[in-house]
Formats: sequence, structure tokens, C-alpha cells
Amino acid sequence: MKSAFISDLNSEQNITTFFLVCEKEIRNTREGKAYLRLELGDRSGTIEARMWDQFEAAAKDINRDDFVKVQGRVELYRNRPQLSVMQVRLAKPEEIDLADFLPATKADVTKLYAELLEFAASISNPHLSKLVTAILNDPAIAAKYKRAPAAKVMHHAYLGGLLEHVVSLCGVAKLAAAHYPELDLDLLLTAAILHDAGKLDELCYERSISYTVEGQLLGHIVMELETVTKAMDAIEGFPANLKTVVQHLLVSHHGQYEFGSPKLPMIREALVFHYLDDLDSKLAAARAALAIDSGEPEWSAYSAALGRKFLRLDHFLRDFVLTSPDKK
Amino acid sequence: MKSAFISDLNSEQNITTFFLVCEKEIRNTREGKAYLRLELGDRSGTIEARMWDQFEAAAKDINRDDFVKVQGRVELYRNRPQLSVMQVRLAKPEEIDLADFLPATKADVTKLYAELLEFAASISNPHLSKLVTAILNDPAIAAKYKRAPAAKVMHHAYLGGLLEHVVSLCGVAKLAAAHYPELDLDLLLTAAILHDAGKLDELCYERSISYTVEGQLLGHIVMELETVTKAMDAIEGFPANLKTVVQHLLVSHHGQYEFGSPKLPMIREALVFHYLDDLDSKLAAARAALAIDSGEPEWSAYSAALGRKFLRLDHFLRDFVLTSPDKK
Amino acid sequence: MKSAFISDLNSEQNITTFFLVCEKEIRNTREGKAYLRLELGDRSGTIEARMWDQFEAAAKDINRDDFVKVQGRVELYRNRPQLSVMQVRLAKPEEIDLADFLPATKADVTKLYAELLEFAASISNPHLSKLVTAILNDPAIAAKYKRAPAAKVMHHAYLGGLLEHVVSLCGVAKLAAAHYPELDLDLLLTAAILHDAGKLDELCYERSISYTVEGQLLGHIVMELETVTKAMDAIEGFPANLKTVVQHLLVSHHGQYEFGSPKLPMIREALVFHYLDDLDSKLAAARAALAIDSGEPEWSAYSAALGRKFLRLDHFLRDFVLTSPDKK
Amino acid sequence: MKSAFISDLNSEQNITTFFLVCEKEIRNTREGKAYLRLELGDRSGTIEARMWDQFEAAAKDINRDDFVKVQGRVELYRNRPQLSVMQVRLAKPEEIDLADFLPATKADVTKLYAELLEFAASISNPHLSKLVTAILNDPAIAAKYKRAPAAKVMHHAYLGGLLEHVVSLCGVAKLAAAHYPELDLDLLLTAAILHDAGKLDELCYERSISYTVEGQLLGHIVMELETVTKAMDAIEGFPANLKTVVQHLLVSHHGQYEFGSPKLPMIREALVFHYLDDLDSKLAAARAALAIDSGEPEWSAYSAALGRKFLRLDHFLRDFVLTSPDKK
Amino acid sequence: MKSAFISDLNSEQNITTFFLVCEKEIRNTREGKAYLRLELGDRSGTIEARMWDQFEAAAKDINRDDFVKVQGRVELYRNRPQLSVMQVRLAKPEEIDLADFLPATKADVTKLYAELLEFAASISNPHLSKLVTAILNDPAIAAKYKRAPAAKVMHHAYLGGLLEHVVSLCGVAKLAAAHYPELDLDLLLTAAILHDAGKLDELCYERSISYTVEGQLLGHIVMELETVTKAMDAIEGFPANLKTVVQHLLVSHHGQYEFGSPKLPMIREALVFHYLDDLDSKLAAARAALAIDSGEPEWSAYSAALGRKFLRLDHFLRDFVLTSPDKK
Amino acid sequence: MKSAFISDLNSEQNITTFFLVCEKEIRNTREGKAYLRLELGDRSGTIEARMWDQFEAAAKDINRDDFVKVQGRVELYRNRPQLSVMQVRLAKPEEIDLADFLPATKADVTKLYAELLEFAASISNPHLSKLVTAILNDPAIAAKYKRAPAAKVMHHAYLGGLLEHVVSLCGVAKLAAAHYPELDLDLLLTAAILHDAGKLDELCYERSISYTVEGQLLGHIVMELETVTKAMDAIEGFPANLKTVVQHLLVSHHGQYEFGSPKLPMIREALVFHYLDDLDSKLAAARAALAIDSGEPEWSAYSAALGRKFLRLDHFLRDFVLTSPDKK
Repeated sequence: MKSAFISDLNSEQNITTFFLVCEKEIRNTREGKAYLRLELGDRSGTIEARMWDQFEAAAKDINRDDFVKVQGRVELYRNRPQLSVMQVRLAKPEEIDLADFLPATKADVTKLYAELLEFAASISNPHLSKLVTAILNDPAIAAKYKRAPAAKVMHHAYLGGLLEHVVSLCGVAKLAAAHYPELDLDLLLTAAILHDAGKLDELCYERSISYTVEGQLLGHIVMELETVTKAMDAIEGFPANLKTVVQHLLVSHHGQYEFGSPKLPMIREALVFHYLDDLDSKLAAARAALAIDSGEPEWSAYSAALGRKFLRLDHFLRDFVLTSPDKK
Repeated sequence: MKSAFISDLNSEQNITTFFLVCEKEIRNTREGKAYLRLELGDRSGTIEARMWDQFEAAAKDINRDDFVKVQGRVELYRNRPQLSVMQVRLAKPEEIDLADFLPATKADVTKLYAELLEFAASISNPHLSKLVTAILNDPAIAAKYKRAPAAKVMHHAYLGGLLEHVVSLCGVAKLAAAHYPELDLDLLLTAAILHDAGKLDELCYERSISYTVEGQLLGHIVMELETVTKAMDAIEGFPANLKTVVQHLLVSHHGQYEFGSPKLPMIREALVFHYLDDLDSKLAAARAALAIDSGEPEWSAYSAALGRKFLRLDHFLRDFVLTSPDKK
Repeated sequence: MKSAFISDLNSEQNITTFFLVCEKEIRNTREGKAYLRLELGDRSGTIEARMWDQFEAAAKDINRDDFVKVQGRVELYRNRPQLSVMQVRLAKPEEIDLADFLPATKADVTKLYAELLEFAASISNPHLSKLVTAILNDPAIAAKYKRAPAAKVMHHAYLGGLLEHVVSLCGVAKLAAAHYPELDLDLLLTAAILHDAGKLDELCYERSISYTVEGQLLGHIVMELETVTKAMDAIEGFPANLKTVVQHLLVSHHGQYEFGSPKLPMIREALVFHYLDDLDSKLAAARAALAIDSGEPEWSAYSAALGRKFLRLDHFLRDFVLTSPDKK
Repeated sequence: MKSAFISDLNSEQNITTFFLVCEKEIRNTREGKAYLRLELGDRSGTIEARMWDQFEAAAKDINRDDFVKVQGRVELYRNRPQLSVMQVRLAKPEEIDLADFLPATKADVTKLYAELLEFAASISNPHLSKLVTAILNDPAIAAKYKRAPAAKVMHHAYLGGLLEHVVSLCGVAKLAAAHYPELDLDLLLTAAILHDAGKLDELCYERSISYTVEGQLLGHIVMELETVTKAMDAIEGFPANLKTVVQHLLVSHHGQYEFGSPKLPMIREALVFHYLDDLDSKLAAARAALAIDSGEPEWSAYSAALGRKFLRLDHFLRDFVLTSPDKK
Repeated sequence: MKSAFISDLNSEQNITTFFLVCEKEIRNTREGKAYLRLELGDRSGTIEARMWDQFEAAAKDINRDDFVKVQGRVELYRNRPQLSVMQVRLAKPEEIDLADFLPATKADVTKLYAELLEFAASISNPHLSKLVTAILNDPAIAAKYKRAPAAKVMHHAYLGGLLEHVVSLCGVAKLAAAHYPELDLDLLLTAAILHDAGKLDELCYERSISYTVEGQLLGHIVMELETVTKAMDAIEGFPANLKTVVQHLLVSHHGQYEFGSPKLPMIREALVFHYLDDLDSKLAAARAALAIDSGEPEWSAYSAALGRKFLRLDHFLRDFVLTSPDKK
Repeated sequence: MKSAFISDLNSEQNITTFFLVCEKEIRNTREGKAYLRLELGDRSGTIEARMWDQFEAAAKDINRDDFVKVQGRVELYRNRPQLSVMQVRLAKPEEIDLADFLPATKADVTKLYAELLEFAASISNPHLSKLVTAILNDPAIAAKYKRAPAAKVMHHAYLGGLLEHVVSLCGVAKLAAAHYPELDLDLLLTAAILHDAGKLDELCYERSISYTVEGQLLGHIVMELETVTKAMDAIEGFPANLKTVVQHLLVSHHGQYEFGSPKLPMIREALVFHYLDDLDSKLAAARAALAIDSGEPEWSAYSAALGRKFLRLDHFLRDFVLTSPDKK
């Protein structure tokens, strides 16, 4: 739907396309002439924009976080590209494809959420089952759970990314409990489903991904602790020690103090869950780095989350045919 | 009241005195003969004890955490001192001075708690005032607050130590807010009064100081977060953002991730409170190290909390008279 | 077969039992009288022993690493227990159960090795298949692989522990490749089977577990790199880049420089394998700590490998019945 | 007085205003034509400048660190703004307001210095009193003390900043000694007044703030150690041990090795002074970050000294009226 | 030979000179018009280039890593300089001076290699002598040894730099063995000559210095370990323990885990060699930083390898004549 | 001269030999009987001693730091050996060999000091020459320089050890300056001779090696800074910048903040000197560890200074004859 993305604009280019209004204000030149200053964005970046004439109506109608249709021309100012706006109006909802403004999972979110509910339904311990059901059935939580990214930049940084990550973890948890009989599957599934619930409100992802003020001051561990604790308190007969165990699973899941866990895992399920969560996240970060063309045929883009580049194995081993039949 | 402390016992010494029962079990020798094995303790340490004859009545009456009167003889076994018990009976409450088993503050706890209530009463913000009052007026909390130590070994590690530490911090907070006008005193006092409330249940200090299981799995930051959050939720009209600020003060007060704070201080009052708390604790640790005779006249005992010894300034400067009249 | 273990000896006890000779020398007293000094061991520890009379024959027959039958008496010398030897003779092989001297896996080693060969046979890539087969079919390697522990103290520190660890990892690798379709199972299996091959010679575990000199100077990563590189060089047509990939899997498997990996994982299979190896090892360490009676009913022994104790979940949650039917 | 600041210049803008000469040289173009190259600065930044014609007189008169009046035009060269100079002359002293070139405290420096002298006068120990007085009464030191910043970028990075910091610390020291009776106020005041004296010469702050070569090679701790040691040696009867104590206060005041203290605080006053100094500096850094408009209404600019942003508490809590009457 | 270097290009400049082709591709404009896109480089940097007309022949002839002669014009595009190519052709070998594209040592490489062979010949231990000779006499190795840099950026980062570094180390080793009689010179020389042999293939330095894929995945320690191990295995009667010692010297030479050594030096020669290697490298890095004009007369450029600038001692002490006669 | 060392005493042994009095006090038993308690020491350790009868005369004559002749019997008390004293008297000077109480260099101290003076005399820069001469010719300094150890435990921890270390460093400095022509030998020699001068008073080594109070509070870097600065100030015309350079050499010689250097080396001579000093110290620590019989034939004792054991190369390579003729 969008005809041009910000990262592709050239100087002296005339454009007519849609943007998100990131900032809006009326300013004055040194000479005292008023003008409208906007910061406009799409999923590829942001650009400064100025409207010099007949901007009064626009200034009244348009606000931060609105989508707008803009006609203008790209110019250089103080060595940075700037959009000189000729015309601007509010976009109609049907003109906007949110995917032009926020990246999103390619998976089917409805199907993923159904899978999540199935995993929840497989929990046999009645207390944990009630807890997980109560949270996933809360319509406000469910709505956010279907949209939330798992992070701003580190991994699964796109709409639906959190759900993808959690469903993957539930699957991995099941495999781990089957392999290591000493592990309780109910606790692993509970940890998987609840461990990032705080991210639903730590991040805001209406029209771009960023942190809420509450998210910055408290973090998702502290935030989900409150949500989950209240849910446990609301369940009659929830055993006190089991409550402590669930709280421990949440607060210890980052595995180390320096990653914001106030306690180290001291229960086997907590230890294992930390590894599984870390592995799933890091592998997703590697996957994301490999999805970007770095210009070097053998290497992925640099992954800031992992502090390294990854080898493109298929390219490096292209001379010989990999023969695992089920994989290639 | 106690006639002998464990750290002073000599081999082949006959004693009759009081101990705390730390462990109790019936065991069998290789030859199949049953005997009663006890671990006995007082504030100076613990000792293995065995009763070989006529222990059946004692074994029935006596349990872990009981105080007992013991007549016996100190012997060496596998190179460690061991008490051979002749007679043992439950101690009567009036025979026991808890101070022989747990160190305690020298300050007047009732007076300290009154001071704490005064500081609480000086909070002018109505929401914070209600919050702090609700917590301090809870009889269960108040009872514990008058007994709790501030730590197992690091600082203020004695009954009443937490209260001493908190009252000192309230005083310091008042001075800091007077000196730095940008700081809000109400927030500093709230932080001082609530920041270690989790220690009331993180530690157990009935007959010795140790960690509860819940304390080990969650830690006092997480524990007080739950208590204080519930108290805020119970206050009608408590502003949501103020709630976030109070929660941030609690979770950030250790100042660094590696000390168990899941978030760094991002509010000035939180930053300053962290410094004041750290300073008051470390100075108390230095004070404790200086109170122990290290055998070196110029130096305190080694402080594990600070990783160093402290100079005895009065001894080192004894040759010249310090003249600050109000100090010496 | 052994009637007494060193950790159970008491002063003044007379014993007749079997030991491993850890050290042997002839010494002289200050007065110039010669005697035989031995250090004797079993799986519970070691003890100093001295034979004062008629030791000449024994001194000739007996050497370090021999098993001996000893009759003697436990005494204290400079405050440490010492065995005064009356008689000593070489033990007959049939008198010795190695398990009294070295802990061993409870699993059936023959069956485990068969499982390992099955995993090896499932590798479909012909080069990797030849590589793994060549190594596992080497009789010298196979013999060691059935005995080697995975570590001296950290995890799986018993005979057969390495095999247990590797077979577990092969199983986990299969699950991981099924869950994450981007991963090549052949590479994961190759990594699992070869990643600790250097431990076969890094450790010596004839009669106790310790490091060889070569093991201390080079470490198992460097040692297996040589073995595996030679095996690859011996396979005609082994692709050069695949060789580099296999070498990278070996050298990066500790995941971080400070754990002795000269390179970080830069291939997805290397990253994932590092996590799986770490998880399997740490979980085994937790299992080992939980197998020891710490005296605290809720807690395991302290695990030096993990720097913490683990909660006994079954004890802590005993009040309510865990209901996952397949687990309890 | 200045009509334009460097950070505000636009391409193709004609300007006539004052600058500091940061660098000056005569260069030749590839074609061999000589021209005058200058780097010009003000408190907002620096800009390259070139004068192509009739620059000979200017080149003779003008030197590095001179203030000049320039008429010229802003152009782009290799994508960076450059000033093409038409005319340049030395500025007259009365045309220059140093504050346009160097930021300065808003406090009254004379009054601050008087306060400092008062604190010094309150020291009752005769030796310390003589020491502090000798240093503060040295006219060269006093002149610098009234101008020096406390740092180049970390905190109080403006003229008079050091004095502000030290006077604040004296006040805090007094409060601390009143609250903790075990502390000697004289030592705390001595530490406060002398602990950064080395900064008078570690930094140079004539026309911009930077480090002297000596400052980089030695640092202010080593530099003030020399100054203060000499002053103590010049006082008759200054006790040797007190000298050691004062030296220890200076060298330990950064509190940790990694911040350049060769010794950790081992005297209580040294420990406490380190905390107070750190707190006063960090709070000033937070204050500075909050003084900058970051564009985000809830957050300060990012503070490099603290590695974080700070919440604007007044904005975040604007919905409810803070009621501490003395603060708002 | 080159008339212009990339770092000196100005906008709107017409040039005719030689470049290395770093990248080549055919692209289409939005309007569908094809053009040739090149990335061109020389030792001063790289520049984007586009050829819009009659590029078909050039596109066929010219490939990545070719040297070309280009006639074109520098323009700005999206604020970055870009070369608009009029004509381009392959350069003739005699037109190219590799030194315009890769920095090189100023020393005489043939002479340096002869010195290296002399050091090798001085090894008296027959096994080590055979080992070192076998490697240095391999023509493929010798050819690379005369060209290889010692690093991409850290130290000796120019053609022949590795040889310079190794010959310097041989000299230092000889001095060290003379000074410390406990050190074996043969082992030190062996370590010096072989310790960076892996860099011959870890880096590629045909037309620029970068890492090979193998180099990134394995690193020079692992790579030279394979080369040297094979060479030892090929020498009849090479003692097994001496082989282990040589391997230890190689793997431990970075001295610490975090610098990629999987083992710490545990032999005195290994410890000393690590120090000598580190010293020679760091001093070279300081030398390189001092060779760059930083604009500050007293200071070198910032050395990223050392994390600091270095004082220009001669400038700082210029006021007094250094009198060591042999040095000045 | 001493007939028995503390580390060799056995229970129930009667001895008559010499000790150093480390502590002395009169104590009372519980029953109120007074006795004399001593702590006695020699170079092998310390032992508690008690004299029960007729100790009054001894208690008057004998003080801490006296050497005494003791007749007594070794007994066990609370499981630790204790000396029951029958007779004790002050030793006569001629009865005492200090070497029984403090380890000392095996080198000829007078010869070593002459070598040091020769190195000093070789400095050609007149200012540095005067500086070094002034310090070495100070009789108080010279006397200490001939006795001081280089450390309490880390390296050269014996009388004369500092001198050994410094003379070795002067030799190494000369070699380094010859090999690297960019280095100024005068500065390296000055650094070598003065860099540990603070240790003359940081340590006390009259009758045992320990730290002085001043040494603990300031450290040798700060202490020698004062001594050397005063010496430079006393030399007429000592250039200011050269003084800064010398001070920098001293304060930076530990090379890193965490080892107590308040500044990193920023002059090449400072960088190199740090490496040489570290190398000489660490090699001495390895030498010391190898001098101790660890019981393992291939390994040295564990070196706490280096955090590892060292291989006994001669033993490990014993099977083949090392042939460097000048070394073996």
C-alpha cells in the first residue's frame, strides 16, 4: 500500500505516501514565521518534516500517533534529509496496512494461540491448571498476548513474537520432561506460559515497539510477579508452597543476577527452564541475523544480542550435498 | 545464667548447663546398640552430643528447637569434641535467657519503634502516609519488626538490628532531604521504612538467625514487593503512578544487578536512598569489626562484609589529643 | 567385600580390610630407624599408614596402585588419624570389587554403548558417518569410552559417567533437531559423540579419578581436536569445509572463552550444542547434589559446580499431591 | 553578546560573531595556493574555517586561544560544514563574555568561597586547622579554587563546579558527623576540602575544559597528595600518624581500585567520605541530565556518568498533588 | 603511481587513477534502467561507484579483486560521496604498486627471513631443530611467512609484520634465556618461531587484510596446532612428552582464557614466552599510535589495542637535552 | 643452631630450643590461677605456649619480639599442639641465627648492592643520575635496601629479596633498551631502582615479614612517591617535566588499576617496565613453587601468586636428553 519507505528516499525526490506521526509541534523561525514540524515514521525509520504554508488546518486535525497521507519533496537541511510537506491529511483506516509500520510474525496468530491453550489444557495439576487458565482466559491479556513482541530488539522483535516464543518453549518443555524423567512437566509449562507475561505491559507496541515508563522502572519480571501473584491469591486453596515455587520460577528465569534475576534458579525445573528460554531466544536471534543480507556471502549480519556474526552453513558447505533426507 | 559456652569447652571437662537442641535422632552403633544423637547449640557455636544409656525418656520429651539442661562430659571423637550426655531434661522457660542463644541490640526496642512511628507520622503525602501506617500498624508486622535482625552475618546481625538500621536511615533521610532540596522527603522515608520489610520473613530468628526456605527462593525484595503492593491496592485512590514509584524504590534499592536489584535506580530518591542504605550498612559492619578484639592493637577484626580490616583510629592517633570537644 | 571404609574409621579401632596403595616409600625416623610409609585409599578417602616392623618383604612386593589387604590399628598422630600396620599383603584380584574404590554408573554400560552405536549409525551424511564410526570402532577408544567418567568432580564423576552423558546428549540432540527444523541433526550427533572424546585421556581413572599430565597441559578440547582431525584426514574425500565445521563444533563447545573455548560458537548447531551440553551437565550436578543427605530436609548438599544448593521439591510440596499421572 | 552559536549554524548562512581560536595553521592547496586554516569554537562546539584571501595580516596577529570576531559564510565541504572567512580580527576583551565559551555555575562564587572558609575555620583540631588554612589561604590556590570545574564531563562540569561540590560536601559531612557520633568531623571536613585539590591543576579551564598533560600522567589524587604532603611537612609538629591518616583519606577517596584509588578506605571516616563524595557527584550528574531536554517528556537525557536516564518525577506524578508543604 | 587516494577526494573532483574492485554487481534503477555498481578501494578506504552508460564490456571483463584504472567524477548521493564512472579498464600488472593498496613493512623481508633461519639453525635440540626446519623450509609456508601481517588492526598490521614480530621475539628470547639461566632457549625459540604460524592462514592479505572463514571459526592457535602437530608426527622418534610440551607452548601463549588460550601457561618457558610476546606486540601498538599525527603535539593517536594514548616523550622533555649518548 | 622447628614437633616430645616471642600476656584460669601465655615462632610457624609455675621472673624479663631459649614439652590442648614451658630465658645474641627465623637470599648481599650502584652509575642523564645516587647513598635507605624482602608472600619473600629483584630488573632493562632502540635506558634504570623503594617501609622485616600500619594505609607506590618527589625537589634544576615523567613511572608500574596503579602506563618506558617487573616477579614465584616438594613428581607446589602449579620440565622430559650444551 505504501509507495515509498523512508530508508529508500533520495534527495530531491517527490513522494506521496503514508506515514505515522511520531512527533508534532508548531515552531517559529528566527524571523518569527510559524511552521509545522513533524517527525514521520514507518517500519524502515523516521524523517524530519516541515510544512511552511497553510498548515493551520492540518495542525489542528493531526496528532501524534495518527497515520497521515503526505505529499512532499525530500531536501537536505544541515546535511540531513528533510521532508518539505505540500499537503497532509489523516489517513483512512482502510488505507493503512499496520504491517508497513510494525513488523509482524508470519505465523497464524489464531492458530498459535489455540496451540497455547492446548498446552495449558494439558496441565494436570489442578492448581496450576486453574492459574494458567485464569490468566489466558482474561480477555485483556489474551488480546495483548496475540500482539506482543518478545523484545524491542533482542529476539522475536515483531508483533506476535512473544506468542511464537512461548509456544515454541511449551513444545521444548514437553520434550525436556520426556527426556529427563526427574522434571515436572506441569511446572515447566506453567513457567513457559507465564514467564514473560510482564512483557504484555513492559513494552508498548501499538504503532511501534518501545518500553512503557512502568516497564522501564520495574521490568517484566516484577510486573508479571504482581499479575501472577494476584491470580494465585484469587484461587481458593492454592497451596502456599506451590505459590512460592511459581514465584521462584518467574523471578529466577533470567538465570543470573546481571540479567535482572534477583535469585538464581534453585529448583531443577527453574534451572532447566532458564536454559530452554535462553536457547530459544538466542537461536531466534541467530535466525534473525541470518535473515539479513550482510553483504558477505558466508556470514550473517552482526547480532548485537549475541555479539557475533553467524556462519551461513549452507553456503559454506555448498560444495557437498548434505544428505540428511528429512532436513534438505 | 549459662555457666559455660560451647566455644570455651575443653576436653575432659564436666559441665552442667543449658543448650538449644539443633538436631535430634536415634542412631545405632555398628554393633546394633541404639543411642541418642543430638546437636546442641548456644550463641557461641554448636557441639555433637551422644547419650548412651537410659535416653528413652529424654528422646520422647525432647525435640529440635527445645531448650534443655544437660549434664555431661566433653570428649574427643574422630578428633572433634563431643559431649557425652549423662542427664538431660527440658529447661523451664524461666531458666532461659534468650540472649545466651541469640545476640540482641543494646538499644531500647520500644523506644526505637516509637521513633519509627514518629517518622512515619511525619509523612505528609496522604497516600504514602496511609501506606506506611497500614503496614506498621499491622500487629503481626509490628511484632516481627521489633525482633528482626537486618542480616544473618553482614550487618546489624542481631535481634532488633533491622529496627536500629531503619530508624537510623529515617534520620539520615531527613538530613539528606534538608541538604538537597530537590529530594522528596516523603519518598525517602517511605523507602527507609519499607525497603527491608521482606526481611521480617526472609529470615527466621526464633532461636537462631537463618534463612527461611521462602527467603532463599525469593529474597526480601520480592517478598516485600508483594506485601507493599497488596497494602497499596487496599488503599482507595492510591495513584497508579505513585504505586509504580514505590515499587521502583523497593526493587532498585540494592543499586546494582549483581546485588539482586532487578532494576537500577532511575529516580533521584531511589539513587540517593541506595547510597544511604549502603552507607549505613557498611558503617555498621565496620563498627561490628571494630568491636571484636583481633589481637592486633591497631586493627579491627577482618570484616567479611567489607573485605578488609579497619584501623583503630583512637589507638593510632593516641599520641596527640583529638580536640573536637563535642566528640571526645 | 570391604569391611570398613576410611571415612568411618575411629581412633583405636582394629581393622582388617582392603585398600589401594596411593603412595609408598621407605623413611627413617629421627633416630635413624627405617619404616614403611604408605598412603592408602578407598572410595571414601585416604589415610596415612606406617609399618614399623618386618616390613621388608611387603616393601618389595607392594607398589603404588596395588590393592592390598591390611591388618592394623587406627591411632592419632599430630592430631590426624594414622594406621599402624601389623600385616599387609597383595590382594588377589578376586578379592577386590573395583566399585569399593571408584564410584560407577548404575546403568548397564554394554547397553549404553549399543545405544551410542545406534545413534552413530543414524547419521546419514556419509563423511560424518565414516568419521564417527571410525572413532567408535577403534577398540582402544571403545574400551575407554565404556569406563571414562565425565569429570573429576563437576558432573557424572564416576565410571561410565561420560557414556551416560553422551548418550543422554544424543537423545536431546534428536529432540532439538525435531523441534527446530533449521538444525542439522548429523552435526549435532557428531558433536555429541565426539565433544568429550579428549576426556578419555585427559583423565586417568584406573583406580581413582585424576588428571593426566597431558590432560592438565592441554585439556580435552585440544586433545580430541588432534584425535578427530587425524580421523578426518584418514577418510578419503572428507570435504575441507566440513572438517573446519567439525573442528569448530569441538573447540567452541564450552561456549565462552573463560571456560576454555578458544572460539565462541558461530554456527547455529554449535550454539545449540553448547546449551544442550551445559544443560545436561548442570542438571546432572543438581541430581548429584540432591543425592547427598545435607542434613537439611528441604535442601540438597551444596553443589560446588553450580555454586548453590537445590530445593527438594518433593519435600517442600509434600502437603499436596502432585497429580501429573505419568510422573508421580 | 554572541549572535550565533556553532550548533545552530545552517548551510549557506552568513554570520558575523565571536569565536575562540582552537587551532591555527597555514596550509597549501594541491595547486600550491596558501590559505589560513582555523578551528573555531564556542561553548556549543567547533567548526573548521578557511580564509583564502588577504589572510596574511590576520595570520600574524591571531593565535591559538585568542578570541576573534569573524565575518563569513557557512558552506559544506566533504559533507561537513565549513566556515569561509571574509574578515577576522582579534576581539576586544570587553566584547567577550567568557560564559559564551565556557559554562559556569549560577551560584555566587565569592559567597561560596566564604562558606568554604567558614567550614575550614570550624575545624577544631589545631594541626588540621593549620593545614586547611595554609592551603586555602594560598592566593594561587584560592584563585583556581574559585574557577575550577569538578570534571570535564562527569559532574559539576562547569566553572565553579568544584567549589560548589566541595561546599556541598562540607555541609553533608557536618550532617553525617552529627548523625553518626563515632565519626570525627575534623577529618571529614579536611577530606572534603582537600580531596579534589589536585583537580586545580589536573584540569585546565582557561577557555575550555580539558586535561593537562600532568593531569593525564598523574591524576588529581597523586597531584594533591604532593601538595598536601608538602603543606603538612611545613607545619611544625604535625603528628606523623595524623599525616598518614590525611594521606589515606586522599588516596582512598575513590573507594575502589578500578576508579584509581591505590588503597581501599580502611578508616571509618575514609569509608563514609567516599560514600558522601560519590553520592554528591552522582546526584549532580542526575541533576545535569534532568536539565537537558531529551525530547521524551518523562525522561531526562541519557547520563553517560550514570549509564542511564532519569525519570522526571514531577511529570510522572503530575496527576496528583505532592503535598510535602516545604518542598513544593 | 596512484594520483589520488580515496580519503582525499572532494566533491565535484575529476579523477583518473587505480583502484581495487571490492564488489561488483549489475543493478536496476526504479525505472528499470540497468547500471554497473562497484565498490572500489585503496589503502586509504573505499568508495561507491556507478557506471551508467556503455558498461557492458567492463562488466564482463572486470571482477572482484581485480585492479582497474578508472576515469570519473566524485559526486554526493544521499549525502555520501560516490564516483560516477566514465571509463574503466583492467590495470596492467606493471601499473600497480601493491603498496598503494596494502601497507607493508619498511624492513628488508629477505634479510629478515634469513635472520629467522639463523635463529632456527641455532636450536641445538635435534627434535626441535628438525621440527622448526621442516616448517620453515616448506616453500608454501615460507612464501606466506614473508608476506603475512601479524594482525588485522592490533599490532604489526602490515605485510611482513608477522616476520618482523617473530624475528624480534627470537632476539628477545635469546636475551631472556641468557638472563634467566633456568630457561631453555630451544623451547623459547621454538615457541617464537611457531606461535603465530596459524596466522599465515587465519588472515588473508592478498589485496587487503581480513580474516578467512577458517580463521574466524578456528583461530590461529587451533590452526597452527594442527600444522605443528602433523610436523612433529612426521619426525621419527619425536618424544611424546616433548610433543606435549610444544603443544602446550602454542595453546597457552595468549596467557589467559579470555584472550583465547584454552590453557594457562604451566611451564616456565610458556609463562615467559607469553610475557615476551605480549610486550613485543604492545610496544609495536604504541609505536604505531605514535606514528600517527593526532593533532595534539604531546600525544599519540588513540591506540584501540591499548585503550589509551601515549605521551610523545621527546616533545614533552624537549626543554632539556637527553644525554644518553648512544640513544640520541 | 636450632635443634627443632615448630613444623616438626610431635605430641609428647620434649624439646630445648630457641624461639621468637610473638605475643606475651599474663592470664588467669577459670579457677583464678595466673599463668604466662606466650606465642612462640620460628621460620616454620608458631605455637601456643603456657608456663604455669615460677613464671614471674620470666614474665618480667621477656617481651614481644625477644628471642628466648625454652625447655618444655609438646602437648595437645583442645586438639591443637601446645607447649608446656618448664624453663625460659632470654637468648644471647650469639646464640641466634636470624636465618632460623627469617628466610634470606642465598646471594651475597654486599656484592648485589655493589652491582646496583654500578647500574646507578651507568645512568648518563645528569638529573636522573643525581636522583638515583642521592637515594642509594642515603645510609638509612641503603641499610634497609640490603635487608628488605620484595613481598610478604607473593615473590622474593625473603631477606634481600627486594635487592635481588631490583638487580635482576636492571639487567633486564639494559637488555630491553639494547633490543628496542626506541627505549631510553636511563628511564628504565631509574624505574627499576626506585619502583619498589616504598617497600623498605611498607614492610617490616626485623624478625618476621609483615606490613607496617603505614604500609597498609598507603602502600609502597604512595610511599615511594613521597620519598622520590622530595629527592627530586632537593636537586637544583631538576626539570619539572622530567619530574612528572619519573612520578608517572612510579605510579603506573603495577600496570592496571586493580593492582593499585592509579594511572595506566602512558609512556613507552612505563609500559615496558611494567612488563619486565611483572615477568621477573612471576618467574620468581614459579621458581619458589618449584623449590617446594609437592609430593607429585611432575608438579611444583601450588603457587597462590600465580593460581596454578608448574610442571617440572626436567622430570617430564627425563626420557630424552636435552642437548642445549650451555644449559644442561
